[in-house]
Amino acid sequence: MTSKEIFAEIKKKRSFLCVGLDPVLEKLPRHLQKEKDPVYVFNKIIIDQTIDQAVAYKPNLAFYEAMGPKGLDILQKTLEYLPADVFTIADAKRGDIGNTSSLYARAFFEKMNFDAITVAPYMGEDSVTPFLKFDGKWVILLALTSNQGSQDFQMITDEKQKPLFVTVLEKSKVWGNSENMMYVVGATRVSHIQTVRQLVPDHFLLVPGVGAQGGSLEEVARAGMNAQCGLLVNSSRGIIYASSGEDFGLAAKKEAQSLQVAMEELLNTYC
Amino acid sequence: MTSKEIFAEIKKKRSFLCVGLDPVLEKLPRHLQKEKDPVYVFNKIIIDQTIDQAVAYKPNLAFYEAMGPKGLDILQKTLEYLPADVFTIADAKRGDIGNTSSLYARAFFEKMNFDAITVAPYMGEDSVTPFLKFDGKWVILLALTSNQGSQDFQMITDEKQKPLFVTVLEKSKVWGNSENMMYVVGATRVSHIQTVRQLVPDHFLLVPGVGAQGGSLEEVARAGMNAQCGLLVNSSRGIIYASSGEDFGLAAKKEAQSLQVAMEELLNTYC
Repeated sequence: MTSKEIFAEIKKKRSFLCVGLDPVLEKLPRHLQKEKDPVYVFNKIIIDQTIDQAVAYKPNLAFYEAMGPKGLDILQKTLEYLPADVFTIADAKRGDIGNTSSLYARAFFEKMNFDAITVAPYMGEDSVTPFLKFDGKWVILLALTSNQGSQDFQMITDEKQKPLFVTVLEKSKVWGNSENMMYVVGATRVSHIQTVRQLVPDHFLLVPGVGAQGGSLEEVARAGMNAQCGLLVNSSRGIIYASSGEDFGLAAKKEAQSLQVAMEELLNTYC
Repeated sequence: MTSKEIFAEIKKKRSFLCVGLDPVLEKLPRHLQKEKDPVYVFNKIIIDQTIDQAVAYKPNLAFYEAMGPKGLDILQKTLEYLPADVFTIADAKRGDIGNTSSLYARAFFEKMNFDAITVAPYMGEDSVTPFLKFDGKWVILLALTSNQGSQDFQMITDEKQKPLFVTVLEKSKVWGNSENMMYVVGATRVSHIQTVRQLVPDHFLLVPGVGAQGGSLEEVARAGMNAQCGLLVNSSRGIIYASSGEDFGLAAKKEAQSLQVAMEELLNTYC
């Protein structure tokens, strides 16, 4: 998928919403538990109800690996259920020595046909570049994450007061380009999104940690949007667990619609 | 498994060898290809032939994920085939926000019953500590890897000229202790192993990047061994692909034996 195609989808849906498909069996609505394959049924309903608002879907691999081998079957079926024009992200945070990263790349890009995979930068260039050798596929590199632990190493400054996440951006942006790399940038500090946008003006950013609060979404858009939108904002639990009852699908839709309305306004203003 | 139990195994086998079980279907000896489950048969023969010399086995998850859902079945069967007294390491290099790391921990420690998992430190404390909540289970945190890309970020120095991998050690060693944490330290620079050993005198170190060369193994032992050995030295391709013919099992055994002989001498000298 090209950035043009992603932007076309954003313009069509007037939204830059990414839905995190992170199901936990015990948390699914009780009426689904009697289904033969409750997680897959849940995913299908979430997709059906959010497909008009979501331009991307991001299953986190941990949720499927925790179910054992059948979890990967559910993931594969879920991917096949998604229409080809949405962007699919394997949130896997992989990264290993070169030949091993190549195997992960084949697993996610060829076997499972994901469009993108999240990758951790700690092991450096030769752990990332094997993922960049697949036409139309994307690496989404962790730059600044939204958890508390992001302070431990990502914010460490070097002799020139430059935080590690900035060095990660500066070094990695020449490994690929804005057609095969994106960055994960947490929404916890807007000034950081500004810093990132200056360093990589054309790259898409995947932003977790935004609630349904119009406020922070507005700040993220103001700091991070570029002429092709350049943002995918993720919501997982806020959408998929909007209700725990039989109406979970409609509740998810309502949540996605409310985000879409806010996003449309931001696209009109900043893009 | 406790460090005492690991050390007991080391004393029994007079070896601190870890065998990397990283099979690639196309690289397996041709006569195995006609088997119903060639990768599992390969793993079993490698285990049979190296079990007298190896105290640990380390399957890298990428090799199994690249085979799709059936790869995880093969991994599970391989794990069940391994005797309980060897230490099993999921080389998975995971790490995610807290609740997601918990799911990975359940997948690897409870579903698959691994003793240990390798974890990447970039996301900080709350991405690592969920793995430390399982009795008798271990986190093996990436400190300094052996690939070229380790220079990109792990060696970046802060205002006090301290490289990132040292900060990772200093911060993380208080998250757990020498009974639930080990570190990955590449064997490419012996001075670094000395640095690591000073910072974590009691922790086990998992050392990749040592060939069959007695030389570097000797240097690693001199710099890294402590009173309970404190080292697990990994060899993957050097053992499992020692021969590509029908004699691959015996060739693997010969390779493991030659490493064991060198290791026994080093245990006599330094431990």
